[in-house]
Amino acid sequence: INGIVQADAVVFHQDAASRATFDPILNEPIQNGADFRRVRLSAKGAVAENMNYFVQMDFGFFGRPTFTDVWMEWTNLPILGNVRVGQWKHPFSLEVVSSFRYTTFMERSSLFQAFTPFRHIGIGFYNNSEDLNTTWAGSLFRTGQDQFGGSLSTDGGNGLAGRLTHLLWYDEPADGRYYCHIGGAYYYNSPPRDLVRFRSIPEIFVGEFAPGAVGTSGQAVPGAFNGTPFFVDTLLLDAQSVNTFGVENLTVHGAFSFQAEAMAAIVDQTAGGTATLAGMYMQAGYFLTGEHRPYDRKAGAIDRVKPFEDFFWVNTNSGRCCGLGAWEIAARWSYIDLNDGTIVGGEMSNLTTGVNWYCNPYCKVVFNFVHSWLDYRTGVQSETSAFALRAQIDF
Amino acid sequence: INGIVQADAVVFHQDAASRATFDPILNEPIQNGADFRRVRLSAKGAVAENMNYFVQMDFGFFGRPTFTDVWMEWTNLPILGNVRVGQWKHPFSLEVVSSFRYTTFMERSSLFQAFTPFRHIGIGFYNNSEDLNTTWAGSLFRTGQDQFGGSLSTDGGNGLAGRLTHLLWYDEPADGRYYCHIGGAYYYNSPPRDLVRFRSIPEIFVGEFAPGAVGTSGQAVPGAFNGTPFFVDTLLLDAQSVNTFGVENLTVHGAFSFQAEAMAAIVDQTAGGTATLAGMYMQAGYFLTGEHRPYDRKAGAIDRVKPFEDFFWVNTNSGRCCGLGAWEIAARWSYIDLNDGTIVGGEMSNLTTGVNWYCNPYCKVVFNFVHSWLDYRTGVQSETSAFALRAQIDF
Amino acid sequence: INGIVQADAVVFHQDAASRATFDPILNEPIQNGADFRRVRLSAKGAVAENMNYFVQMDFGFFGRPTFTDVWMEWTNLPILGNVRVGQWKHPFSLEVVSSFRYTTFMERSSLFQAFTPFRHIGIGFYNNSEDLNTTWAGSLFRTGQDQFGGSLSTDGGNGLAGRLTHLLWYDEPADGRYYCHIGGAYYYNSPPRDLVRFRSIPEIFVGEFAPGAVGTSGQAVPGAFNGTPFFVDTLLLDAQSVNTFGVENLTVHGAFSFQAEAMAAIVDQTAGGTATLAGMYMQAGYFLTGEHRPYDRKAGAIDRVKPFEDFFWVNTNSGRCCGLGAWEIAARWSYIDLNDGTIVGGEMSNLTTGVNWYCNPYCKVVFNFVHSWLDYRTGVQSETSAFALRAQIDF
Repeated sequence: INGIVQADAVVFHQDAASRATFDPILNEPIQNGADFRRVRLSAKGAVAENMNYFVQMDFGFFGRPTFTDVWMEWTNLPILGNVRVGQWKHPFSLEVVSSFRYTTFMERSSLFQAFTPFRHIGIGFYNNSEDLNTTWAGSLFRTGQDQFGGSLSTDGGNGLAGRLTHLLWYDEPADGRYYCHIGGAYYYNSPPRDLVRFRSIPEIFVGEFAPGAVGTSGQAVPGAFNGTPFFVDTLLLDAQSVNTFGVENLTVHGAFSFQAEAMAAIVDQTAGGTATLAGMYMQAGYFLTGEHRPYDRKAGAIDRVKPFEDFFWVNTNSGRCCGLGAWEIAARWSYIDLNDGTIVGGEMSNLTTGVNWYCNPYCKVVFNFVHSWLDYRTGVQSETSAFALRAQIDF
Repeated sequence: INGIVQADAVVFHQDAASRATFDPILNEPIQNGADFRRVRLSAKGAVAENMNYFVQMDFGFFGRPTFTDVWMEWTNLPILGNVRVGQWKHPFSLEVVSSFRYTTFMERSSLFQAFTPFRHIGIGFYNNSEDLNTTWAGSLFRTGQDQFGGSLSTDGGNGLAGRLTHLLWYDEPADGRYYCHIGGAYYYNSPPRDLVRFRSIPEIFVGEFAPGAVGTSGQAVPGAFNGTPFFVDTLLLDAQSVNTFGVENLTVHGAFSFQAEAMAAIVDQTAGGTATLAGMYMQAGYFLTGEHRPYDRKAGAIDRVKPFEDFFWVNTNSGRCCGLGAWEIAARWSYIDLNDGTIVGGEMSNLTTGVNWYCNPYCKVVFNFVHSWLDYRTGVQSETSAFALRAQIDF
Repeated sequence: INGIVQADAVVFHQDAASRATFDPILNEPIQNGADFRRVRLSAKGAVAENMNYFVQMDFGFFGRPTFTDVWMEWTNLPILGNVRVGQWKHPFSLEVVSSFRYTTFMERSSLFQAFTPFRHIGIGFYNNSEDLNTTWAGSLFRTGQDQFGGSLSTDGGNGLAGRLTHLLWYDEPADGRYYCHIGGAYYYNSPPRDLVRFRSIPEIFVGEFAPGAVGTSGQAVPGAFNGTPFFVDTLLLDAQSVNTFGVENLTVHGAFSFQAEAMAAIVDQTAGGTATLAGMYMQAGYFLTGEHRPYDRKAGAIDRVKPFEDFFWVNTNSGRCCGLGAWEIAARWSYIDLNDGTIVGGEMSNLTTGVNWYCNPYCKVVFNFVHSWLDYRTGVQSETSAFALRAQIDF
């Protein structure tokens, strides 16, 4: 049994336009708060030499327990490599394929929620070249779903995704301390009931359930889910299909890392014609204590950071003694534009700066400051900041 | 920690009468879809030599996580054998007592949901003869309950069940490759608030949560549960008590198996007199690869199929090489009649044909085709077919 | 993986005034029933020598799975001892800090739910003196929260708690068969949105979910939570802050134990002035089979009872043979007064008598009889009794 806990605290600061945008009536601010962003438990194993399973539930997000990874796979197959059935993160984007455990910032970029397919029920395969420099993967899946993988739709609701990655260089003698990864991906979506929606939070989130129905016990069951609102949102669009393209780069030069992705979604609307929504982000990080960001060559993904020295602080005979863990500083700029043709979803630029303290390979404490410039779908321009702290442990 | 995953995909085909029956207003079809039919995690063990526990949660059905087996038991007792407290499948019917892991088809027969007590909170015992040819079990339990075993009722809501099984023959030298099991069971139910309901799905199901309440986060929590409707349904009946009887047979002759059960529920209505609802099914299966359907002599139940050769497909020096796993073909006919006296719940016959591929003892892929002849409670006759595929792994 | 199961059955007896109080319209009684009071699964471990985690979910109470303990901690630190981040039971009251696994009665006293902070998301530390005779702990935390630790509030919602305990004597040679523990605690709460509520059940509870929304599947999802009502309840009060004080004693003299706590909450109301709500309980227990109630010196809390001889009952060559387990009888008197100044929440005295049968260290069967004298907030006086049975196993 494995798991992860992320405990967050977030404080917002809004200008007057931002308050008026998100609560025009009461003018209430976006609520500060603390919550568990993710609490997951999982079981992983093999039932035969050529057959693995993984079941992971998230207890921290709405719809608890939400299904995250639930799949079985046949491995070591000729031609295809590995074939998987169930629900998992379909191949598209470095941020998606890499675990949230290893992301540099508290939240993935604003592109992630808007454009990527993420987890759905389906069937797919993945494989890599023998020299481990190239990976490829493809999936067929249902694109509508509830929080538990269920998906009903007689009219549409099918999609496919594929991703190809390559290492331009990889310093094997230095065990991957220097490398340059590039990749491209494609995602086709015929949305269920021809309805699709693009939206994103401002790269930070904190939420709480409102009290729901009260029975004779006097105790309220959990009701609606309150929390940080979507900053950009196209609302529901009537579309026959969406074709999304993404490109990605990750370059690591010792303690320094650079990462960038760009995505464009071509929306084939039932009325209103074709529109293109797009975005990109780029980020840089630097380990003050000299570590580097590792790479998983079979998945084409970011791997776990291991501090040179774990944190400790103890009394000894010769006084107090301590280890620092690893310290990283990082900054990200992201831009997303959900306005095109007849679609008016808003436009947002975010600047995130962060400090990561890796106590040991399994625990990190993250501080993020996010500043968001928003051109809301109503046309109002506003600025919002968030100060956020996270403690994370995975086991 | 143990678990199981079942990922399903279902496609329906309805005649015009069937569409009109299930959506007279919009004439929408029964929705195709994909979902996780069951995702379960469980912990089982012993806290003392004579004391076991089992906790199993289902995350796949509505009310997630739904309680399935949650019990403790004292074992090796004189007279009673084993005494159990908590929630489990009370002794009634071969299909119920046997694990869904080992059922021949994707769903149990239409009798199962309509007539058997299944899981409730209670106390019971079970035992077997020393020669392992006879088993008996009895339970006292609450018959109303929510998805978590909770049951409130000052007026009724109590029941009892008992089951007796016997092996007419069992080929010990062949390790149970030839045997004939018979059994009978009784279930008394004094329903909570004198309300009882009999209903059944058409031996196939796929579902999804509708979006529920939306809070300031803009995210919908799971709402109502949509999916394959009940085909026969008495709606709520006012009844003082229900007496249900069942008989069962399982005959295995090597690769061939035959299984049949019949049940009758005598409903003592508060007004409208006594009515008898009944049903039966019979099914046959044959392992093309020669395996047989094993038997658990302590539980009087079906056991896990073990292929002679596990599935594999690999590249070797001398070309590609593969193992087939086990292959079984099977067919079932079932009939349920929920019309009697003043009760009008409908009448349904189903023919199910299936192909099972057992990759290894822990994984199977199932294809089912179900054809359902329905005499709906409104009097309309219709036909519905379903094509369904399941991938299952348990660990 | 660890866990616990508590299966309960409860039957109520009410006088006419009690029935009229809790259902003035239909005059329905408080419903009898059976349920799982707690079903918990947890994972605990260490990711480094100086870093532990604990994740525990409750599947038995409303909001399933409700978060109970979800935390990470750094240990062996100079000065502070241990620092914890996440959600856990903040330091206040012997009944709170001790596990519900080891409580003498089925429910904690009426003070527990009304006055103590219990579990919230926050940060804290705990430590003990080197001779293990003194413990101290302090926490800063969010005081509003949903069932999953989430807490949104820009206006208030912060608190702190501290607890100090000391052993007046502890018989080390007898391995703690004789000891006297005293303690004091303080809890400051600035409630979210200046709203606070004090309430308590009558030291017994049984509940069930009402059916909720019905979708096309015809299956109802869980709705509101019905069950034993609150007997005393101030309803929502507008208050700037609440200062709560508690004192505690536990004296164990071999098979005999005595335990008492008193608490007072000083409510600083926005209008209506300051009011003081208070309560106390005292209880005594005696092990007929001679065991004693153990003590955890690092936590200042009650520990697990271990029978001298585990229960067993077996057939042997020389007839049937049995072990008794441990048997304890106990009684508790509690009093809570939620009337003061402009606050009218009611007043309740409870007498609970109980018999505990410890089959082995991990399983107990509990019988409780609770009699409750209630002066309801409407001024009506009534009496209610409950007979309750619990089977508990933890692993």
